[in-house]
Amino acid sequence: MDHLYTAPHEIERRSFEIITRELGERALDPLEEPVIKRVIHTTADFSFADTLTFAHDAVARGLEALRAGATIVTDTNMALSGISKPALAKLGCTATCFMADPEVAEAARAAGTTRAHASMDRACAIDGPLIIAVGNAPTALLRLCELMDAGRIDPALVIGVPVGFVNVVEAKEELLARTVPAIVARGRKGGSTVATAIVNALLYEITRAGHR
Amino acid sequence: MDHLYTAPHEIERRSFEIITRELGERALDPLEEPVIKRVIHTTADFSFADTLTFAHDAVARGLEALRAGATIVTDTNMALSGISKPALAKLGCTATCFMADPEVAEAARAAGTTRAHASMDRACAIDGPLIIAVGNAPTALLRLCELMDAGRIDPALVIGVPVGFVNVVEAKEELLARTVPAIVARGRKGGSTVATAIVNALLYEITRAGHR
Repeated sequence: MDHLYTAPHEIERRSFEIITRELGERALDPLEEPVIKRVIHTTADFSFADTLTFAHDAVARGLEALRAGATIVTDTNMALSGISKPALAKLGCTATCFMADPEVAEAARAAGTTRAHASMDRACAIDGPLIIAVGNAPTALLRLCELMDAGRIDPALVIGVPVGFVNVVEAKEELLARTVPAIVARGRKGGSTVATAIVNALLYEITRAGHR
Repeated sequence: MDHLYTAPHEIERRSFEIITRELGERALDPLEEPVIKRVIHTTADFSFADTLTFAHDAVARGLEALRAGATIVTDTNMALSGISKPALAKLGCTATCFMADPEVAEAARAAGTTRAHASMDRACAIDGPLIIAVGNAPTALLRLCELMDAGRIDPALVIGVPVGFVNVVEAKEELLARTVPAIVARGRKGGSTVATAIVNALLYEITRAGHR
């Protein structure tokens, strides 16, 4: 099986070559292209080339926030765990998730809501540029819309890619009906790995610039 | 948007109803069915009903190992982070990942291999029933095949669902050519969330028995 051992950076390079080839003649926006390709790299699912939607200069606003040392809030510890820690450190950014925070759990219990819902209320207290990445809970996205409507939170970018069958499509369309910069995988698909891939694609655009 | 707020357990119940309906008349093996449905629940991708392959009494052997307090080794911290900790605790099982282990990093450096490769060597030292879950690195799966061939490791179950474009299909077929009980997503698709979904589906079969 020796012929099947390949160094990780070489696997990544060849994978992106294959993705580029199989995407064929499709014209991609140069800012959106690295995001779309990294999501396909993470899922082996080319349908994301059709469903990924970029609203209100999402990529430019996201890169700007990362260059300014943004805080990234995820809705799952799984998504948090996949975000590149060396890239965050290089940019002076931080990533956090409030799902295991005892105060958030208590707030959810007291208000009769979910921890995903209470997490978004908690995110309102964060200073500085903010990126919210939702890969799992449509209720997080819905609560975020309410908080934005009420003027209580103003993210530089919302990544809205929850996955599932109930209220997921609706929550994504609610997000896209706002004026916030947003990257959304329309339809049912998405997930924590997709949220992570989008965050990492943006991080790498800055930290790997000139290395590609 | 109030009509879109739904309790998490209710979302899960309705999601599985939708999945069952959309799977239609397809006859699923009763042991495999909860695994297949949970993977679809996690991905919203029905193609897994065609690609998920169960070899050598995989589900029965996996459940047996979990009932005996198995150790689950994942190839990413992301997959580890998604495994249900309350369910593990209830069964006296543990889950671990060696990717951030300094000794594994040093072993990889010394041998000129990857951490995924060295992680599998590290897993050989684990006593008791073992489940290996690979959602990312085909090299982990290839090294595992070598270690099994050499009689150095004997997992009760291997979950082989790496995702990607280079050596992924080949690594999965290598695994299926062995006699080890295995659950494999044939083809390019898979990932950390798929590995986690399979582990959790098996855990819930025991911890939620009678609650469904």
